[in-house]
Amino acid sequence: MTEEPISESDVLVQNEAFYAAFRDRNVAAMTELWATSTPVSCIHPSWDALIGRDQVIASWLAILGDESSPQIRCENATAWIAGDVAWVVCNEIIKNVLLTATNVFVREEGEWRIVHHHASPTASAPAAPPMRKDFN
Amino acid sequence: MTEEPISESDVLVQNEAFYAAFRDRNVAAMTELWATSTPVSCIHPSWDALIGRDQVIASWLAILGDESSPQIRCENATAWIAGDVAWVVCNEIIKNVLLTATNVFVREEGEWRIVHHHASPTASAPAAPPMRKDFN
Repeated sequence: MTEEPISESDVLVQNEAFYAAFRDRNVAAMTELWATSTPVSCIHPSWDALIGRDQVIASWLAILGDESSPQIRCENATAWIAGDVAWVVCNEIIKNVLLTATNVFVREEGEWRIVHHHASPTASAPAAPPMRKDFN
Repeated sequence: MTEEPISESDVLVQNEAFYAAFRDRNVAAMTELWATSTPVSCIHPSWDALIGRDQVIASWLAILGDESSPQIRCENATAWIAGDVAWVVCNEIIKNVLLTATNVFVREEGEWRIVHHHASPTASAPAAPPMRKDFN
């Protein structure tokens, strides 16, 4: 019996499942997607980090429980794998707003589960190199 | 000969070295900190993702080459390790502005090197659960 090869496409399928759960406000699917053996964390747009499964899952229950939660779609996803960890960079589109996200996955019992999500708004048409002095 | 144990503190030392290189505008140190064998990516505040070492290093040369580049410090860093990959969540403080960052590291030849950096501004006093509808 040979083991299945590990491929970026499997990670991208799970990444898409994450956005489908978000879009469908599917609490069961969203809860299932987050890792259980590995500590999890989450940085929602403009928010400080949430650390630990209780805080992270509670934040998703609040988001998915909101009937006015917007449609979201994922584009331009790229995945990289090193061992049992993968990380994805993608855009999130919510109506006309562009965000950029980092999603980190860990393989738990053969399944890619999310351990970290970080999403933040993106300027749509940057005109100069990113200068941290903008935060002065 | 026994192998050195892998510990979160080694990752946090490298995370701090990243912010020291940033603060000191140390191009050599910053270039050295980024992985060479593993593909790299970077999401500067409000920017779309930069993918590939050429783009990422060029962005840092621009930032560090700017004499008005601000002092930055890192606080509240937490690291997690799975195999040869580690990820850190921390705050960045630039004067009075709070950002939150995700930094992903991979062990290359025994050294933790950065493969992904994502920083974004953080509201200092959130008053409600994070609602993506804010982007409607």
